[in-house]
Parts: sequence; C-alpha cells; structure tokens
Amino acid sequence: MIVVDWGTTHLRAYRLTASGEVEARRSVPKGIMSIAAGAFATALGEVLEDWLQLSDGPILMSGMIGSRQGWFEVPYVECPTGLHELAAGTKPVPWTATRNVFICPGLVCRDDESIPDVMRGEEVQIFGALTGIREPESLTICLPGTHSKHALVRNGRIERFLTHMTGEVFALLRDHSILARLGTERRTNLDAFDDGLRRAQQTSGLLHHVFGVRTRVLINELEAASLTDYLSGILIGHELIGAPLRPPALIVGDPALCALYERALAHFGVEAEVIPADVATTQGLFAIGKLVERNMGDRF
Amino acid sequence: MIVVDWGTTHLRAYRLTASGEVEARRSVPKGIMSIAAGAFATALGEVLEDWLQLSDGPILMSGMIGSRQGWFEVPYVECPTGLHELAAGTKPVPWTATRNVFICPGLVCRDDESIPDVMRGEEVQIFGALTGIREPESLTICLPGTHSKHALVRNGRIERFLTHMTGEVFALLRDHSILARLGTERRTNLDAFDDGLRRAQQTSGLLHHVFGVRTRVLINELEAASLTDYLSGILIGHELIGAPLRPPALIVGDPALCALYERALAHFGVEAEVIPADVATTQGLFAIGKLVERNMGDRF
Repeated sequence: MIVVDWGTTHLRAYRLTASGEVEARRSVPKGIMSIAAGAFATALGEVLEDWLQLSDGPILMSGMIGSRQGWFEVPYVECPTGLHELAAGTKPVPWTATRNVFICPGLVCRDDESIPDVMRGEEVQIFGALTGIREPESLTICLPGTHSKHALVRNGRIERFLTHMTGEVFALLRDHSILARLGTERRTNLDAFDDGLRRAQQTSGLLHHVFGVRTRVLINELEAASLTDYLSGILIGHELIGAPLRPPALIVGDPALCALYERALAHFGVEAEVIPADVATTQGLFAIGKLVERNMGDRF
Repeated sequence: MIVVDWGTTHLRAYRLTASGEVEARRSVPKGIMSIAAGAFATALGEVLEDWLQLSDGPILMSGMIGSRQGWFEVPYVECPTGLHELAAGTKPVPWTATRNVFICPGLVCRDDESIPDVMRGEEVQIFGALTGIREPESLTICLPGTHSKHALVRNGRIERFLTHMTGEVFALLRDHSILARLGTERRTNLDAFDDGLRRAQQTSGLLHHVFGVRTRVLINELEAASLTDYLSGILIGHELIGAPLRPPALIVGDPALCALYERALAHFGVEAEVIPADVATTQGLFAIGKLVERNMGDRF
C-alpha cells in the first residue's frame, strides 16, 4: 500500500509493507496550492513513478487533496465519529487505466455556539496516534501547527474538536506587524516563553498582550532576540486556555513544536506524550486502508 | 498658535485663534515614517510655509514626532498624570533662527501585571475631550484605531490606560491571512458585526473565533461579503472585554470607526458620547499651549 498525506504546502508519500511498516518515504514541496486545477493526476504520477513500477497496490490519500481546492471534493464526515465511518466515507477517484486512488474524508463538528469547525488530514493522524494507546477511553489530542487542532476522544471515537489559528497569527505578527521592526535576530529563551504563558492567563486579552511585546522591548525589559519566544508563549497560552483540555493528552506533530507544546501543557498541569506526525499519519492511513479493503474487496 | 498632530502616517496642522478656534487646517500624508532622519525641520517648513508668514506665534506638536524615530525624543510622563504634568514635560526644540517648536511628551503606565504600556498623541486628545465635559470625575475614554487605547480618567487625571492591537490585527487577518482568499467584495452588515460581538464573549478564545470566520464562509453560513464586519465584531468584542471599561464613556477618533465602537459599547451596556479626533486634538494642544506659555513666558 502507498499512503500519501497531501496538504496545502507538501506532499508526503510512504510505501508500506503488508504489515504497515514504512519501507520508503519521500516529501516534496508540491502542496495543492502549487498545483494547477486538473494537474493533480500528473503531479502524483511524477512523484511516485519508480514506486509504481514495484507494485500494483492501492494508493490512499488524506489532507487538503480531498478539499474543494484539491483533486476531488470528498464530503466531510460529522462528529462524533470513529475509524469505521472514516473508512466508509473514503472515495475512489479514477486515476490511470488500471488504478484508482482513494481519498479519505475530512471531519466537521459544531462548537458550543454551533459554529462549524473542520479538519482534513488530522483525523487520520488522530486515529493513527490512538493505535499505540492501550486504553483510549478518554483523552485529548493536540495537533499544533498553522491551524492547531485539539480533539476530544472518548471510547476510541472523536467526540469533538476545536481549531485555533495560532501558527498563522504567530507568523503574521512576527513577520508583518509592528513587531517585525524590532529586529530579526533570535535566540532561544524558554524563560521568555514561560513568561508568555503566564501573560496569557491575564484577563486583559490577547490584543493587549501582543502590544505589550513591543512595549517591553521598547522599555528594555525584554531583549529583541527573545521576542519570538515570548510571543509564542502568549499565543500558545491563549490557545490552551481556549482548548477543551482533558488529561491525559497526546501531542502529534513536528518534534520541535511538540516540545514547546509539551512544556506549555505541563505549565497548565497536563502531562502529555509526543507522537511524531509521520508515525501517526502512516499508522492511521494503514488502519483506514485495511477497513476500506475489507469494504471494497477487489476494488481497493 | 499653530498646533500639529504628527503621527506615523500623517501630519495634521491647525491654525488657532487666540481663543482656540480653528481658523485653518491641513492634512498631508507626511508621517514620520516617510521622513528621513534629520529632515523633519525642512518637512515642517514646507507644510507650514504660508502660515509662517502670517504670524510669529509658537508651534506645539504631539504624536510620534516626539518618539525615538521622530525629530527629538521627549521622555514619557508616568501615570497617573494631569494636564499640568504634560505641560511641564513639553520640550522646546530649536527650529529656525527666530522660532522654537515645542513637543508634548507621551505617557507610560503599568498594567496589573506590571507590563509597561505607552501612548504618544492620544494623551493630548484625552485632555482635549475632557474640556467639553462638565464633571469628568470618573470615566473611560476609548480611542479606537490601529492601536486602540482605553484610558481611565479620575478627577481630571489619566489614572491608567491599556492598548489593544485591534486595528493592526484586523488588517493583517483581512489582507494577509487565509481569510484574504475568501474574496474582497464587502457589503456593510451590522448583524454580522453584532454576531461577532456575541462570538467574542465565548470562552474558546480569539484564535478559535477567527478560524471560525473561515469555516462559516466555507459552510455557507456567512456571506463572504460580510466577513470583514463579522471579523471586526469579533476583534472589537475581544478588545472591549479586555478593556478597563467604566461608564460613562467617551469615544475619540474617526467618525465611522467611532460609530462601530458606540454600537459595540452599547452591546456591552455602556452608553458613550463621540468626540471627533480633530476637535480633541486641537482643544488638547490649545490647553497645553496655554499652560506652557504661562510656564515659559517669552520663550514660548
């Protein structure tokens, strides 16, 4: 089986053995935003060319490739949901004369105010992360990033989730706001990160806290080189205060970012285990692939 | 007396009568960011050339012109403070052979967590706004904008204030985030603005609420043309929740923006009176000028 996480900025492909071990992997910066409409089939063929010679096994994909801007729009599945519903919502898309590709659906849920929230790709990582957990009765899974997700899992099903635009707002403030004029040098300063976490707990609000980053530098109470860590602590702190945290927690993502979130969760009294994003992705797609195979038989 | 509000993006000059009436005004997009260091004297001379022929009266300025990036850095005055301290902190700067210009100081204060906050220019508008108020015993003054200010006034003195980066974050999200891809058409929709104010009162946090703007458009629950009003309601709502509001309130600023804040304050149960920014600026600088004149005599 070949599994592919095809997102906004990257295409990550993995060749799996019959038991789900990764035997080869590749990552190329060919996200769906860089591919013209109608050119997805050709792009995938180019990236996987040599692998396709080796086997005629199925190809299963997740991520933004299943969105309106992707190859084929696969309808969202509603929460609460389990692995079986995801497999049932997976759609075959004609590719070559002899081979279909399969695209997993994303998830939609409603928050407390009935505002919709969506994900595409993270749902696969969530179920992948759960495969290594002995008793996934009730836990929180955090997937930090451009659009951070926090999902509540109960009895092996995703009950609900919440997205925070943390990574995107961080990059906008660091690179394009008045804070960008305070210098570009950066030295890691975890004390400044912790200060940011504490600052986020004040009731004066995020829009005031980010202005205070500038003022502290102006008044020489914060080194300009520590600005990004302080800002990062403020934003991650606000995210965690607004997230539906319930211990125990798993963190799935890029290792460096996961380490920051692990530190932040500990600050809020939640112990967390880190699972690398690629492990979660491949385990999740493998598990869904097995179910799709059972549902579809020869057509998978 | 000629008074000048010289900020980051604009220079606004007013010629006042002996009783403080505005008899002429001009505004040019020659903010301090567009003037090279050392070129402020020449720039001011060009803008005021014909007015300078008419009288040899003093010139009093406020705003970012007194910052480190401006003509001459005038030290901040600490809160709580009154009009007399502002006048005492005003500095003469040599200009031409026969004339000085005078630059008002900005203010600095500490919030509940002892993080510094600063303003330059708004302090003049606050005292200008107070001149028309019969009993300014205790009230809130809101100065909405790129960096919105909320000041608490007690017994005619500015007790403390708080800055929110509302306008800047709004522009970044509207023009440079993933929300910018949802279309640029805009129709005024005050219901969407009110929805945003209500949304801000939910505890899931600003970073979640701004992601929900996108999702609501994707799921066709919000028209793309109403996106900016909804986003504006969310951000202004978060600002007001974090601000030290105490009725009665004055709002000082651009009339269209003041109208939105008046609506938002009413949503939170606070009645407010609107005072145009130029009225507040000229009344404030005139009052400070009178005090500086008394302090300095012939040298003003």
